[in-house]
Amino acid sequence: MEGLLIKNALIVPMDDCVRTQDWFKGDVVIEGSLIKEVGENLQAKYPYFTVIKGEDSLVMPGFVNCHTHAAMTMLRGYADDLPLMTWLKEMIWPREAHLNGEDIYWGTQLAILEMIKSGTTTFADMYFYMNETAQAVMEAGIRASLSRGMVGSGEAAGLALEESVEFIKTWQGQGEGRITCMLGPHAPYTCPPAYLEQVISLADDLGVGIHIHLAETEDEVAQITQQYGWRPVELMDSLGLFQGRHVLAAHCVHLSAKEMEILAKNKVGIAHNPESNMKLASGIAPLSELLAKGALVGLGTDGASSNNNLDMLEEMRTCALLHKVATMDPTVLPVGQVLKMATKDGAKALGLDNVGSLAPGQKADLLIFDLKKPHWTPLYNPIANLVYAAQSSDLKTVIIDGKIVMQDRQVLTMDEARILYEAEKRGQDLIRRKVKNS
Amino acid sequence: MEGLLIKNALIVPMDDCVRTQDWFKGDVVIEGSLIKEVGENLQAKYPYFTVIKGEDSLVMPGFVNCHTHAAMTMLRGYADDLPLMTWLKEMIWPREAHLNGEDIYWGTQLAILEMIKSGTTTFADMYFYMNETAQAVMEAGIRASLSRGMVGSGEAAGLALEESVEFIKTWQGQGEGRITCMLGPHAPYTCPPAYLEQVISLADDLGVGIHIHLAETEDEVAQITQQYGWRPVELMDSLGLFQGRHVLAAHCVHLSAKEMEILAKNKVGIAHNPESNMKLASGIAPLSELLAKGALVGLGTDGASSNNNLDMLEEMRTCALLHKVATMDPTVLPVGQVLKMATKDGAKALGLDNVGSLAPGQKADLLIFDLKKPHWTPLYNPIANLVYAAQSSDLKTVIIDGKIVMQDRQVLTMDEARILYEAEKRGQDLIRRKVKNS
Repeated sequence: MEGLLIKNALIVPMDDCVRTQDWFKGDVVIEGSLIKEVGENLQAKYPYFTVIKGEDSLVMPGFVNCHTHAAMTMLRGYADDLPLMTWLKEMIWPREAHLNGEDIYWGTQLAILEMIKSGTTTFADMYFYMNETAQAVMEAGIRASLSRGMVGSGEAAGLALEESVEFIKTWQGQGEGRITCMLGPHAPYTCPPAYLEQVISLADDLGVGIHIHLAETEDEVAQITQQYGWRPVELMDSLGLFQGRHVLAAHCVHLSAKEMEILAKNKVGIAHNPESNMKLASGIAPLSELLAKGALVGLGTDGASSNNNLDMLEEMRTCALLHKVATMDPTVLPVGQVLKMATKDGAKALGLDNVGSLAPGQKADLLIFDLKKPHWTPLYNPIANLVYAAQSSDLKTVIIDGKIVMQDRQVLTMDEARILYEAEKRGQDLIRRKVKNS
Repeated sequence: MEGLLIKNALIVPMDDCVRTQDWFKGDVVIEGSLIKEVGENLQAKYPYFTVIKGEDSLVMPGFVNCHTHAAMTMLRGYADDLPLMTWLKEMIWPREAHLNGEDIYWGTQLAILEMIKSGTTTFADMYFYMNETAQAVMEAGIRASLSRGMVGSGEAAGLALEESVEFIKTWQGQGEGRITCMLGPHAPYTCPPAYLEQVISLADDLGVGIHIHLAETEDEVAQITQQYGWRPVELMDSLGLFQGRHVLAAHCVHLSAKEMEILAKNKVGIAHNPESNMKLASGIAPLSELLAKGALVGLGTDGASSNNNLDMLEEMRTCALLHKVATMDPTVLPVGQVLKMATKDGAKALGLDNVGSLAPGQKADLLIFDLKKPHWTPLYNPIANLVYAAQSSDLKTVIIDGKIVMQDRQVLTMDEARILYEAEKRGQDLIRRKVKNS
C-alpha cells in the first residue's frame, strides 16, 4: 500500500502517547488516511513510501477551527467598527438576505482556500444553503462538521428542521467520513424552549450532536433571564440539552460560576472565539476559570465579517495574549495549552476523537511549516515560536485525510484564481444590490 | 534625475492634502529620497522614470515601530508565560549580561530583516552596544531613531551619559539623515530625579529628544508614588521633562486623568505597545481616553522577547480589537485611526514630520502590498482589509528613502541566510552559557 514518510522533521505530536517530550526530531509515516507510525529512522521500515524531506521543518496536527460561518467571507470588510445592532440589522442581515446558493458555494470555497492556506484542516460551520457548503468541502478535501442554522420561530422554523434532517441524511459521513453533521439551533434567544426540545429529540433520533451559539453577549443573558428566569446555560441545562449527547457551544462569554460548572461537568465542547468577541465588543470569556474547572475548550475564528480572517495561528496568539492581560497574570494560557485548544481539544469539542494529534491510528491531518524565517529565529522553543511569532505563510504543506492538499503553498484541490474572481465579482454585485427592510 | 513611478495602484496616502478620499486609484512618483507627486496618469509627465506596475497592489506609507529593543530578537521564545519578575530577573537580565557587541549587531540585523519584511520602514530603539545597532541600520538602509539606554544609578550612570553624548555626536543625521538620535533614560524607577535633570539639560545642549519607559506597570506607579509622592507622569512633569522638548514615552499604561491631560497638552509622543502589555500582563492603556483628549499616540511592538514578533500589521489588529473589548464599545479605534497611529502619528511621536504619509516632499518610505490573496477578497474597504485581514507576507516591495530595499520579498540590502545562521548560532551559544547571579 502506498504511503508518505516525512523524514527528519521537528515533530510536535500533541500526544504524549507518542513521546513525553513536547517536540523531538523524527519521522512521521502515513498510510492511507491514517498516521501509521511516529518515531526515528523509520525509512528502512517503509522503503517504498514517498519521502517528504523534513529538514528545517516543523510537523504538527492541523488546526481545528471550532466555529465559523464560512461563506461570510462574502461580507469581509463590508461593515466594521459599528455598534453591534447597527452592524447586524442595517448591514449584515440585509446583505445575507440577498445571498443565493451559488454565492454561498463560492464564499465557502474562498473560506476553505484561506483556511487550508493558514493550516486549518477541520472546521465547524453553521450557516444556510448547506448543500452548497458540503459540496465545497467535498471538492476541497478538507474535513468539516456542518450544521444548517435554524431559527425556531415563524414559518421557517418547521422547514429548518425538515431541511436539517434531509441535509444530515444526505451528507453524514460523506467524503470517506470527512463530513460530519450536527443540528444547528441558532441560539437560546432565537429558538424557544419548545423548539429546542424538538431539536434535542431529533438529534437523538439521528444520532448527531448539536451546535449552538450560547451566552455571547450581556444582552442575551439579560433577555433570557428576564424571559425565563434562568441564565442561558441554566436554561439549556433545564431542557436537558447537555445530558448524554455531544454539544458544541459557541462563545460562552458571559457565565456564572454555576454555569461554568454545568459546562465543565457535562464536557460540553466550548468554541472560544476571542477575536470576534473583541471586535464586536461582546466581552472576554472567563477562559482560565473554565479551564481550571476542567471544561473542554477549542478555538474558533467565527465568520470573516467579525474577525476579519480565518487564521488560527492568529487566533491562538490573541487567545494567549488576551487572557494574560484580562487576568493580569502572565502565566495563564501558556503556549502548550493554547496549541492543545487549537488542535486536539478542538477536535474533541467537535466530537472527533480520531483527529488532532499525531498518534498512530489518528487521521493524517497535518501541517509542515518552514522554519527558515527571521521570525522563527532563534529556535529555542518551537511551540513558543509557533504561538507567538509564526505566520500562516510559513506553512508549506498541508495533508488532510492522508492526501496532500497544499504543496509549496499551492492548494492542489482548488482553483485559486477562479475563486478570487468569483468571490470578488459576486461580492461587488451583492453590495450594489438594493436593500429591502433597511 | 532618476526616479520611480508606481503606476495604477490603489493608494492609501494617509494625508488629506493629497486627496480627501482615504484611498483612490493612481500613481506615486518618487524622485531621489522624496515623494515628488501623487495623482492620476502621471507617466506622460515623467517619461524617463522607472515604472513599477501597481495593478492589484496597494501602496501606503511604511510603518513606524515606535518602541523596540531590536537585538532582543536574540531572546525570542527563550522565556515565556512567566511572572514578570521571574522573567526579567531569572531569565532575561542574566542572558542580556552575556550579550556582546557582535551579538547585538546580528540580533539587530535579524530584527531589521523581520521589520523590513513586515513593512516597518522606521523604528525607535533603546538598547545597549548602540554603535553596532547604528551600523546595522546604516547597512540595511532602514530609518531609525536610536537611544542608548541609561540607568541612572551606580557606577554605570556617568558612563552612560558620556557614551550617549559620544553616540549622538557620531551618528546623528548619518545615512543621509536616516539615523536620528535621542537620549534614553530607561525609566523613572531606574533614573532618579537628579539624574533625569542632567539628562534634560544634556538633551537641550545637544538638541535631541528623550526616549523613556513610563507608567508601564502598577508596581512602577506604586513605587514612584511611595518614593516621591507623585505618580510617574506627574513626577516627570514636575522635573520639566515635557516642557519645550520632544519626548517619546513608551507604554503609558497606568495613568490618572490628570496624567493623561499632561501627556496630551504637551504633545508627548506615546508609544503604545498592546501586545507586550498583554503578554507581560502589564495592563491595558486607556487609549481611547488618551485619543479623546488629543494625545499623540504611535504604535510599537516592544522587544521580541515580550511579543514575540516585530510585526506592525499584527500590532494594529491587536490594538483595534483590544480596545473595543476593553471599553465594550465596537466603535472605538476604527481602522483609519489605527492606521494613522501606525504611520503618520507614529512618525510624529518620533519627532519626524517628513515621514509617515504619501504627500509631495515627504520621505519616500512606502510599501506595496499584493492584493490577490484570499484574505484580501472581496475588496470593499482596503483599510479594513489591511488592519483586520492582511499578513506581512502579502507585502511585495519596500522602498525606504527612495531606494528599493525589498523586491519580491527579497531584502536587497541584507544577507538573509547569513543573518539566520549567525543569530541561531549565537543564540544557542548564549543560552548554553553558565549564568552568574541567578
